[in-house]
Amino acid sequence: ENGDFAAAQDWLVTHQVWEVVDAIDRMGAVDAVAAFRLLPSDRAFDVFEDLEPSRQQAVLEVMRGAEFSAFVDSLDPDDRARMLGELPAKVARRVLEGLSPSERTMTATLLGYPEDSAGRYMTPQVVVLHERLTVAAALARVRERGADAETVYTLPVVDAERRLTGVVELRELLLTDDAATVADLVVTHPPRVRATEPAEAAARLMADSNVRDLPVVDAEDRLLGLLTFDDADEVIEEAETEDAARQGGARRWEGHYMAVSVLQLAGTRAVWLVLLLAVSLLTVTVAYGFEEALEEVAALALFIPLLIGTGGKVGTQASSACVRALAIGEVRPSDIARVTLREAGTGLLLGTGLGVLAIGAGLFFAGLDVAIVVGVSLLLICLLGALVGGISPLVARRLGIDPALVSAPVVTTVVDVLGLLIYFVVASLLLGI
Amino acid sequence: ENGDFAAAQDWLVTHQVWEVVDAIDRMGAVDAVAAFRLLPSDRAFDVFEDLEPSRQQAVLEVMRGAEFSAFVDSLDPDDRARMLGELPAKVARRVLEGLSPSERTMTATLLGYPEDSAGRYMTPQVVVLHERLTVAAALARVRERGADAETVYTLPVVDAERRLTGVVELRELLLTDDAATVADLVVTHPPRVRATEPAEAAARLMADSNVRDLPVVDAEDRLLGLLTFDDADEVIEEAETEDAARQGGARRWEGHYMAVSVLQLAGTRAVWLVLLLAVSLLTVTVAYGFEEALEEVAALALFIPLLIGTGGKVGTQASSACVRALAIGEVRPSDIARVTLREAGTGLLLGTGLGVLAIGAGLFFAGLDVAIVVGVSLLLICLLGALVGGISPLVARRLGIDPALVSAPVVTTVVDVLGLLIYFVVASLLLGI
Repeated sequence: ENGDFAAAQDWLVTHQVWEVVDAIDRMGAVDAVAAFRLLPSDRAFDVFEDLEPSRQQAVLEVMRGAEFSAFVDSLDPDDRARMLGELPAKVARRVLEGLSPSERTMTATLLGYPEDSAGRYMTPQVVVLHERLTVAAALARVRERGADAETVYTLPVVDAERRLTGVVELRELLLTDDAATVADLVVTHPPRVRATEPAEAAARLMADSNVRDLPVVDAEDRLLGLLTFDDADEVIEEAETEDAARQGGARRWEGHYMAVSVLQLAGTRAVWLVLLLAVSLLTVTVAYGFEEALEEVAALALFIPLLIGTGGKVGTQASSACVRALAIGEVRPSDIARVTLREAGTGLLLGTGLGVLAIGAGLFFAGLDVAIVVGVSLLLICLLGALVGGISPLVARRLGIDPALVSAPVVTTVVDVLGLLIYFVVASLLLGI
Repeated sequence: ENGDFAAAQDWLVTHQVWEVVDAIDRMGAVDAVAAFRLLPSDRAFDVFEDLEPSRQQAVLEVMRGAEFSAFVDSLDPDDRARMLGELPAKVARRVLEGLSPSERTMTATLLGYPEDSAGRYMTPQVVVLHERLTVAAALARVRERGADAETVYTLPVVDAERRLTGVVELRELLLTDDAATVADLVVTHPPRVRATEPAEAAARLMADSNVRDLPVVDAEDRLLGLLTFDDADEVIEEAETEDAARQGGARRWEGHYMAVSVLQLAGTRAVWLVLLLAVSLLTVTVAYGFEEALEEVAALALFIPLLIGTGGKVGTQASSACVRALAIGEVRPSDIARVTLREAGTGLLLGTGLGVLAIGAGLFFAGLDVAIVVGVSLLLICLLGALVGGISPLVARRLGIDPALVSAPVVTTVVDVLGLLIYFVVASLLLGI
C-alpha cells in the first residue's frame, strides 16, 4: 500500500501536466480525487484547469474553507465560468460565494453569455492599445499589464469609445523601430466575433483566417475580450466529438468515454434507437402490404437486405460528405440546388454500376425477371440514397437544426422504408403481381 | 462584361484574404485562374498560400518566367514543400528549378520527410536560444533574426550540439528583468515530436498539452524546426475531413466538395460500395440457405429490415463513439478488454429494451411464436452490433489500419450478414423448421 502510494506520487510529479490530466480523467471518481490529493499544490492548479467538469466537481466537493477559496480564486475567469456552467447549481453557488469581489464580477459577466457562445470562452483580461501610442510606449504597456493577461501576442487596438479598430501583433512591435506608432502597424478590419455568437463559428473563423486569437466584441463593436487559440482548440474538439456522436446516431456523452457508466452510454444511444425503431416499423408495414407478392415470388425476399443495405450506404456516404462540408464551410445552405444536382449525378452513376452487378447476382440466385427487378430497384434506390443523404443536412441547417443529426442511422432508416417501397412497387409493375 | 470585371476586382480587393480563398476554391478551374489574375500582386501571394493544391497548380501552370520564379521563391518553405508533394512531378520539377539555391535546399530537405509527417509541416526558420544568454541578449536576437522566422512566440532552447533542452515563451522574456538569463526562464522537458512521426499525432499532442508551437526534432533530439499553430489547425482539419469521409465509407476526395467533379465524387465512393456489395451477397446466400423456412413461415420476411437495420444502428453508434475516442486519445488499443465489457453491457441493455418493443410489433403483425423469435433475435443482434462496432476500431488500430475505416457502412454490412444468420438460426431452433 505504501509502496503504491509513493510510486503514484512519483508518477504524478514526473509526468507532464496533460498526461496527469488524461490519467485522472480515465479513473473512477474516487480514485480521481485521491490522485488529485497527491499532487503538489503548484501542479494541482494546472491539472485542475484541464480536468473534465465531472472530475472538477468531484475535487471541489471534498475541498474545505481557505484551500477552496484560494483555489477557485486563482482560476482564469473564462475557465471558471465554463466550469460553473456545468456544475450543479448548489456547487456553483458555493464557488461563486468563495470568490473575491472583482473575480466574482468578472465571472458573473461571462456567465451572462449563452452556453457555448464566444462570450463564455473568451478571456476578458487583455492588453489593449491605442493608435497614437508609440511602439516604445506600447511595449512598456505590454510589460506593465501583461502579467494578468492570458495572451500578449495579439493586441487589440481600440478607439476612445473602446470600439475595435484593429489588431497589432506583438511580433510587429518588437521588430519595428521604437519611434513608429501603433497606427503604422495596425491591421484594420480584423476578423472578429460577437460575444453572443456560437463559439464554434468563432473557432472555425479562426482556423479559416489563420488568426491566433480572435477579438470578441459587443453589438456596438466594443471590445470585450479575446478568444485564445487554446480555447478555440477546445471548442473545435468538443464540437467534433459532439458531431461524431450525432453522426453515429447518439447524444453526446458528457465526459471521457472510459469514465461514464454503461448505463449512461446506453442512455445516450437509447433515444435515437427507440425513435428509429418506431420508424422502422414502417418497413414491416410496407412488407406486410406486399405479403402476397412475397408469397407468390419468394425469391424477392432474398434481395431485401442487399438492396436496402446498399441504399443506406450510398446515403451514408452522401450525408457524411455534406455534413462535413457544411461544418467547415465548403458548402452553404444556399448551395442546395447545386448539391442536389451533384448528388443526383453521383447516385445515378453509382446506381448504374451497382445495378449491373446486382443483375448478375439476381441471375445467379433467381430468374431473369427477378434479376431485372433487382437491378432497376437498386438504380433507383442509389439515386434515392444520394439525394436523401445529400439534401437532408442542408435542409436541417436551413431549419436551424444541427446537420450532424442527419446521421448514418437516420439516413439508413429513411432509405430502408422508401427503398423497400420502391422495390415492391418495381416488382409489382415489372412482374405484374 | 466590363461592369462584371470591375465589380469582381472590387470584390477581390475589399474582402478578407480567407474570404477570397474560399470564393476561388468554390469556382471551376478556369474561373479560378481568371479571378486570381485580377488580384493585386501583394494580395495574390497571401491568397495563393491558402488555396487548394488543385487551384495552386492551375495558377502555376499559367504563370511565366520571372513572375513565376519570384512568386515561388517567396512562399514559406513548409507551405512550398507540401504544395510540391501534391503537384504532378512535371510541375513540381519546374517549381524546384525556379527556386534560388538556399530556398531549393530548404525545400528539398522538407520534401525528404514522408507525406503527412511532422517534418513536412514544420517550419525550419526558427529563432533559437541558448541557456547562458541574458534576457536582453535573447530579445536582441529575436529582433535581429525574427523577421525571417514564422513565429517568435515560442523560442526553442538548445545546447552546443543543437539538442533541444527546453522552450522559452517570448512573453516570459518581455515580462522579466533584463539581467535574468534564459536558463532562469526555460521550461525543460517540453513536449516534442520526431520529424518522421505523423503530423496528426503531433497536432493532437499540441491540442492536449495546450502548446502554441511544437518543437520538431531528429532521432538524436536535435532541433529541426517548429510545428506552428496554424499548421496544426490545418493538419487537424484535414485529418477530421478524412475521418469523416472514411466514416461515411468513402475515400477522401482531394479538394473542395463543390470543386471536384461528379465523376470524382462517384469514384471516391465506388470502391467501398462495390467491395461491400460483394460482402452483402452473403446476405442473399444466407437467406437462400433458409429459403424453405421463409416459404414455410412467410411472416419471417417481414421483420428482416427491422432486425438487421437496428443491429446496424447499434453497431454504428458504438463504432463512431470508439473511433472518436481513439482519435482524441480517450481510448487506447490496450483498453480492448474494458471496451469489450462496456459495449457488451451497453448492447445487452439496449437489446433487452428494444427486444421487448419488437415482441410487441411481432404480436401485432404475426403470431406469438414469430414475436418471440423476433424479440430474442433482436437482443442477440444488438449485442452483436455493439461488440462489432466497439471492438473493430481497436483491432484496426492494433493492426496499423486507420480505425476510421471501421465506418457505418462497414459495420452495417458485417452486422447485416451475421444478424441475418442469427435471425434464421433462432427461428429454426425456436420454430423447429
